[in-house]
Amino acid sequence: MEGPTLRTNIASARVLAVNGRGPVERADRVAAEEPMEIRVGGPLQEPGPVAVTMRTPGGDFELAVGFLFTEGLVSGRDEIVRVAYCELPDEEQHFNVVTVRLSGEFDHESVRRNFYSTSSCGICGKASLDDVAVRCLPVGPGPIVEKDVLASFPATLGAAQRVFEETGGLHAAGLFEADGRLAFVREDVGRHNAVDKVIGEALLAGKLPLSEQILLVSGRVSFEIVQKAAVAGVPIVAAVSAPSSLALEAAERFGMTVAGFVRDDRFNIYSHPERVAF
Amino acid sequence: MEGPTLRTNIASARVLAVNGRGPVERADRVAAEEPMEIRVGGPLQEPGPVAVTMRTPGGDFELAVGFLFTEGLVSGRDEIVRVAYCELPDEEQHFNVVTVRLSGEFDHESVRRNFYSTSSCGICGKASLDDVAVRCLPVGPGPIVEKDVLASFPATLGAAQRVFEETGGLHAAGLFEADGRLAFVREDVGRHNAVDKVIGEALLAGKLPLSEQILLVSGRVSFEIVQKAAVAGVPIVAAVSAPSSLALEAAERFGMTVAGFVRDDRFNIYSHPERVAF
Repeated sequence: MEGPTLRTNIASARVLAVNGRGPVERADRVAAEEPMEIRVGGPLQEPGPVAVTMRTPGGDFELAVGFLFTEGLVSGRDEIVRVAYCELPDEEQHFNVVTVRLSGEFDHESVRRNFYSTSSCGICGKASLDDVAVRCLPVGPGPIVEKDVLASFPATLGAAQRVFEETGGLHAAGLFEADGRLAFVREDVGRHNAVDKVIGEALLAGKLPLSEQILLVSGRVSFEIVQKAAVAGVPIVAAVSAPSSLALEAAERFGMTVAGFVRDDRFNIYSHPERVAF
Repeated sequence: MEGPTLRTNIASARVLAVNGRGPVERADRVAAEEPMEIRVGGPLQEPGPVAVTMRTPGGDFELAVGFLFTEGLVSGRDEIVRVAYCELPDEEQHFNVVTVRLSGEFDHESVRRNFYSTSSCGICGKASLDDVAVRCLPVGPGPIVEKDVLASFPATLGAAQRVFEETGGLHAAGLFEADGRLAFVREDVGRHNAVDKVIGEALLAGKLPLSEQILLVSGRVSFEIVQKAAVAGVPIVAAVSAPSSLALEAAERFGMTVAGFVRDDRFNIYSHPERVAF
């Protein structure tokens, strides 16, 4: 079920570089961003659209199933029969439509009816913490991670982040073991997409729940990152930048450890410090 | 119609600060994030929910109308009769529901039917460039901005960005005049929200289209930022960080100038450099 990386995640651009010496035209590279439609159907059901996300191509199958899982639309790998790109007459759009075939019927009407409170994308995001709490059990005890190991995650992620180096334009999410090894890393123009890709990859590999892993994100920790991590059972979320107030409220509620501003040899722990050893 | 800033946009937190010398507990401040529901109704129509966004409180009315405008659900100030917080029995939620009363009936069913292609929030975002192109005319000729003025925007925005200084956790959007003056600045945990707030503020002040202004964003330029700017008629979008490939495609299509990596005395121009004077 590995989604082939058939399209490049870097695009070329011509830029006029302006500095003290005046403008110089040169070639540049930018992060690729393209719409991807996720369609879902049952065994005897024509697949219908569920969401369109602006994403960086690559890890499309993981993104599709990760999104469906963290949004509570699919509850596990058992429900997924097949993931495929669509057969469309329009060649260019072929890899921008991913169809997920489920073992049972999918209730499109109910998703549509509740769309404004079931999607996690910020603007049409969660109505409330309660809404998520219904779907998430508190995370388990999880591992204990040494402070120096936790502090080393961003450097490890950075070394694995190929596209960012070239474009400066991508978010990354990495899943780490407590001994510091990087299990999965994914990049995307959307922070939530990078997280969905990593969780979707774990789902397809049969590795959920992620009760012994640590999720690192390259930017800030918003509510939706904590929510997605909670659905996957991740006990520790670390970030290079700051958390929001609602992210911390959610982390408290789910018993999750949140570390922010993880840079060089320092970081802040905002909740459940008992999972970090000094 | 100025939305009162009745709730703080900074929340307090206790953190365990970890560095070479071991953990120290101290008070910290984080960016506030709370859900806000946008309800819309006509003169004789019970207002119904259209979207829920996770946002930083402050500029809520601007966010509500800016969102409705940049999503193509409201076409201008004339349609808006009243913007208000809801009267709810639950005190805590009072300021998390904004009702926009329109002069005509609002077609909730059609919004619901098309939700997956009409929202701009990335994950349930635009199906295609064509979809947006229908609603956007190319931007006008616009102003010519001196390169040193353009390069000065981030410092001006930074000086006006109160919450970021304290929390490190917010995106900002600023609207500038071609002579370097900052007209509006708004902050939010969501980049698209900061842009919607600025555009909503301009809409409520009767200043649309923004055909002589420059929009500066503190982060990256995704497709949705260009799309929102295009709906408001903004001819120049500048950013502290990188643009995506689809952002540049859209900018070409709408005749918009995009400058990226605007830092100190340098930046890159990715499209329509004729609006920058050297």
